Amino acid sequence: MNPVITRSEQDTLALARALLVASGSPPDLANDVAESLVGANMAGHDSHGIQLLAGYIGMAQKGVVAAATRVSVLKRAGAMAVLDGGWGWGQSAARAATAQAIELARESGVGAVTVQRCHHIGRVGEYVERFARAGMTGVVVCNAGPAVLPYGGAQKRLGTNPIAWAAPGSDPERPLLTDLATSMVAGNKIALAQARGVEAMAPGLFVDAECNPSTRPADFFAGGALLPAAGHKGYALGVMVEFLGGALSGGWVSPLPEKHYGNGPLFLALNIPAFTDAAGFRGQVDAYRQTIASTTPARGHERVQLPGDHEADTRRARAVSGIPIPQPTWAELLALCDALGVAPPGGRA
Amino acid sequence: MNPVITRSEQDTLALARALLVASGSPPDLANDVAESLVGANMAGHDSHGIQLLAGYIGMAQKGVVAAATRVSVLKRAGAMAVLDGGWGWGQSAARAATAQAIELARESGVGAVTVQRCHHIGRVGEYVERFARAGMTGVVVCNAGPAVLPYGGAQKRLGTNPIAWAAPGSDPERPLLTDLATSMVAGNKIALAQARGVEAMAPGLFVDAECNPSTRPADFFAGGALLPAAGHKGYALGVMVEFLGGALSGGWVSPLPEKHYGNGPLFLALNIPAFTDAAGFRGQVDAYRQTIASTTPARGHERVQLPGDHEADTRRARAVSGIPIPQPTWAELLALCDALGVAPPGGRA
Repeated sequence: MNPVITRSEQDTLALARALLVASGSPPDLANDVAESLVGANMAGHDSHGIQLLAGYIGMAQKGVVAAATRVSVLKRAGAMAVLDGGWGWGQSAARAATAQAIELARESGVGAVTVQRCHHIGRVGEYVERFARAGMTGVVVCNAGPAVLPYGGAQKRLGTNPIAWAAPGSDPERPLLTDLATSMVAGNKIALAQARGVEAMAPGLFVDAECNPSTRPADFFAGGALLPAAGHKGYALGVMVEFLGGALSGGWVSPLPEKHYGNGPLFLALNIPAFTDAAGFRGQVDAYRQTIASTTPARGHERVQLPGDHEADTRRARAVSGIPIPQPTWAELLALCDALGVAPPGGRA
Repeated sequence: MNPVITRSEQDTLALARALLVASGSPPDLANDVAESLVGANMAGHDSHGIQLLAGYIGMAQKGVVAAATRVSVLKRAGAMAVLDGGWGWGQSAARAATAQAIELARESGVGAVTVQRCHHIGRVGEYVERFARAGMTGVVVCNAGPAVLPYGGAQKRLGTNPIAWAAPGSDPERPLLTDLATSMVAGNKIALAQARGVEAMAPGLFVDAECNPSTRPADFFAGGALLPAAGHKGYALGVMVEFLGGALSGGWVSPLPEKHYGNGPLFLALNIPAFTDAAGFRGQVDAYRQTIASTTPARGHERVQLPGDHEADTRRARAVSGIPIPQPTWAELLALCDALGVAPPGGRA
């Protein structure tokens, strides 16, 4: 295993902002991206955290991301809207789409928003957490480039195609939160394992370039492919996300030649008080939490967690302990600091 | 394995209609239920087909289903509606909700409809197929009574909580169609295996009353429980459906004492032309179909199927070959015919 550097949330945020601004992003857009990445670290999703920053900045420097471009509204009618991300930062576009979906749902009970020309939006759970903070429930899905085998197939035909959902209970720091790839694992989680120096991951997650089962991260990056979660079920959900996200947003589906790098997302907010008593809904969330907490664990398990507990628990712990950054990721960030003339907040070691 | 009786689609429909009318359902509501059950058989989902009829009629006779009650609209505002199923037939309520969601989506781009006091709605894929026939895409989810273990838990805390989605391509008989339980398997599929006389199912689907892994259908019905699909992923999706379906509809979540028999459903339609070019969307469905058809199969597989192919292929085959009904199910239907004075269309043997 590789050594780990620890940095506070504030230092990590300041580092990400400074590097993004130094590489050409306006401060407000840099802040969107920095908060999204560091928010992922704080939620325990290091796969979608600061380890993505060097790649993001590389894309901005090559012009793959138009780092100063702002999202615009192409269409707004009834309870739906289509935004244009203009190949700017996906996080900024996704925040705007989330706010737009909330506004539409407040007016019409439900709001559905897609984003055309949308770059990587990061941890999808971030946006549904915003729905919950607004007293709403809702779903965000997005497709991505081909990385996943269809059930029964030997060629990549789907993105990791996450599904995220959240709902508020009484504790605003602890919504119910579902946030998962429809593949067995997200590709960025394999990148994280590699940065950590993990030699063997759990079996059954991915195959190598010859479609043989593998546990070695390097095999995945040498032409391997991810397996769909639960076989035909993850495949069928992945296809759903290709079209609800990719095709509906005008972003194309994963294996077709027109597909561009990035995510095709759908943001769907539902205003709870339009449908049912909001206090009653929150009460059901609280009661379900208690029921799960009192559930007898299965053999080999100490307790039963609710979806969202991992994120809330990690956020609380890392507010004290800071964010662990594997040495190879840290070295990459320091090299970026040198290249862009940024002094790393909190020092180099 | 038990012997199998075969009946044509028309005879099976006529039988179901006659038994429902004889037990007190008005002809139009009887037709909704009969078409739904036989439609499930035709689509190859025998778990949700005619094998459910005897149980349904038993519930009508005990007044658990109010067989003559019609769905009503409690609220319609903006792009959402809440219907009241009044504990009448769930299929009739679900058809009305589907039609309402389509109407709302035509006006507002998206439509979201819940149903309070809603009985079992049958094969959920039926309703999203209606979205596709209307040129829309959309999702239907519903919760159900507790049958599934949470990940890491030893007590039932979730329904089988299906997720269904469809999207139209150029062939109206063959939409993309995702229709799956968030558990490893639906309870009704174990009932089907039992009716067929299957002694051992695949491993990893369910546990017995002592939470030991089992493959014997009888163990499931003697206090066993289903496992969530893909462990924590199916669990997290199941929790999502408990709240998007159960709580939002006012139908309560699965393990709480207020939960009534039946489904808490959400019907969500998205009008494709409001978001993107409809012909382009259908073209992407067609191109994706071709890409999947030309995908190299994995070892041990002959071809790669698209979600929805199984339903379309089975429908075509059974239009010729008829519907296979396991002997124990057929005997149950004949006993009902005798009790209700119905002559079985196509004869007794």
